[in-house]
Amino acid sequence: MINSISNRQVKEILKLQKQPKYRRSTGLFVAEGLKMLTEAAENGCLVKLYISGTVAGKDNERLEKLCMSCSFETVTDNIFKQLSDTVTTQGVLGIIKQPSYNITDILNCKKHMWLLLDNIQDPGNLGTIMRTAEGAGMSAVIMGKGTADLFNPKTVRSTMGAIFRMPFIYTDDITETIKIIKNKGFNIYGAAMEGSKAYDQADYTKGAGIVIGNEANGISGRVLGYVTEKIHIPMEGKLESLNAAVAAAVIMYEAARQKRGCINISLHNYNK
Amino acid sequence: MINSISNRQVKEILKLQKQPKYRRSTGLFVAEGLKMLTEAAENGCLVKLYISGTVAGKDNERLEKLCMSCSFETVTDNIFKQLSDTVTTQGVLGIIKQPSYNITDILNCKKHMWLLLDNIQDPGNLGTIMRTAEGAGMSAVIMGKGTADLFNPKTVRSTMGAIFRMPFIYTDDITETIKIIKNKGFNIYGAAMEGSKAYDQADYTKGAGIVIGNEANGISGRVLGYVTEKIHIPMEGKLESLNAAVAAAVIMYEAARQKRGCINISLHNYNK
Repeated sequence: MINSISNRQVKEILKLQKQPKYRRSTGLFVAEGLKMLTEAAENGCLVKLYISGTVAGKDNERLEKLCMSCSFETVTDNIFKQLSDTVTTQGVLGIIKQPSYNITDILNCKKHMWLLLDNIQDPGNLGTIMRTAEGAGMSAVIMGKGTADLFNPKTVRSTMGAIFRMPFIYTDDITETIKIIKNKGFNIYGAAMEGSKAYDQADYTKGAGIVIGNEANGISGRVLGYVTEKIHIPMEGKLESLNAAVAAAVIMYEAARQKRGCINISLHNYNK
Repeated sequence: MINSISNRQVKEILKLQKQPKYRRSTGLFVAEGLKMLTEAAENGCLVKLYISGTVAGKDNERLEKLCMSCSFETVTDNIFKQLSDTVTTQGVLGIIKQPSYNITDILNCKKHMWLLLDNIQDPGNLGTIMRTAEGAGMSAVIMGKGTADLFNPKTVRSTMGAIFRMPFIYTDDITETIKIIKNKGFNIYGAAMEGSKAYDQADYTKGAGIVIGNEANGISGRVLGYVTEKIHIPMEGKLESLNAAVAAAVIMYEAARQKRGCINISLHNYNK
């Protein structure tokens, strides 16, 4: 049983939790909880399992099954507490291979609905966006340089497993990806306060790209130059903006609604 | 200048940040940042201002204006850091009177769109829901017993000022409020996985109540017994549920979309 914080494996886990660079160079990340780890095992991504002393002794069918899928170690409760990123830990933690996708597959996905993130910074927002993107049936989430790291422990947790199911890719220059999607004949809609068209007046039924920008500053000027049309979400009250994950959800679900075959008829035009 | 952690006022601030009960008994709460505090001052809610040493010396027109609105104290940077709930503090913190509303006004609001929260637990979710509710033009947010405290520092921050503009109320028994809204002739839609109708097939144009349940368990069985109809948000992939703030946003914005005069035509029926 691992009982020291200076144990080599313990140090490895802490490094994977704290250092985005180390996660990138190893292609690994850390996640917690039976549900998440079972999903990792089913996807063949689970590399190694760590179990707290208390949990190891308990009769738990799911945990036993999980232990059969890869090598595991037990860790004293005290050390496990220092490794866990959550307040109420389930006492199970794993090192997992990062899923990866290639841009050609992502751009050829037949759903033709791409979410493009320009500099989303909050780990929780990014995870929630991945989760919603799966629910709304997007093809993939394409992230520009500067977007937060998907394998941050908080982000991983917020995806609720979508990290294993939702295709994603980081691109060095998101405008290049936007150009390719436009060349395929799809519109790119950018969520912007000053958008001339309300989000529900855009047509997503033939497929489209949706760009969501940074929490504080919105879509960067350079990226905005490449969108087909700016769209806005009408807001009442004195609110300056919506939360980025909320804005992404409202637009993605409008696209999904239209794609399911519900068509709008505007009874009257309205302006922003 | 306050320079001790055992200063009476410092203790008061920490107590207001940490103890929901103390916030309730005093009717006060703590918030940070120039924007939030300026809004509090404009609403006549700002009681006392605390400024970090560094910030106090700087030439800042907004801060000076704020200091004229109520009494203030300077605090050493070191003590201020211990009071601040954020990583990158602006060095301004205030004690604020809690806004309050009465149920009669809330139920008579002409917008006729009520959001009812049954046991939302995450402070960030609650704040984001308040923020979205303002944007979507809801009448008020009605919270059942067991819902998180709106005046938790994290919740306050997530509202982005909506806490001063969006009417809200806590009720001992949310089913009593639901009964009153139903007696006024409005439908109550409950977001539930097993909802028979998709959220965008419900009619919100004549006004309605929308119930959102707990993050892990959804709407409680007792409350669910009082809804007019259960509605679900269609989900692709293998996702079990959406984030509660996202689900609330998707439904509130569909209601807002319908109220703006965009009517659905279903081209084909679809099932859950």
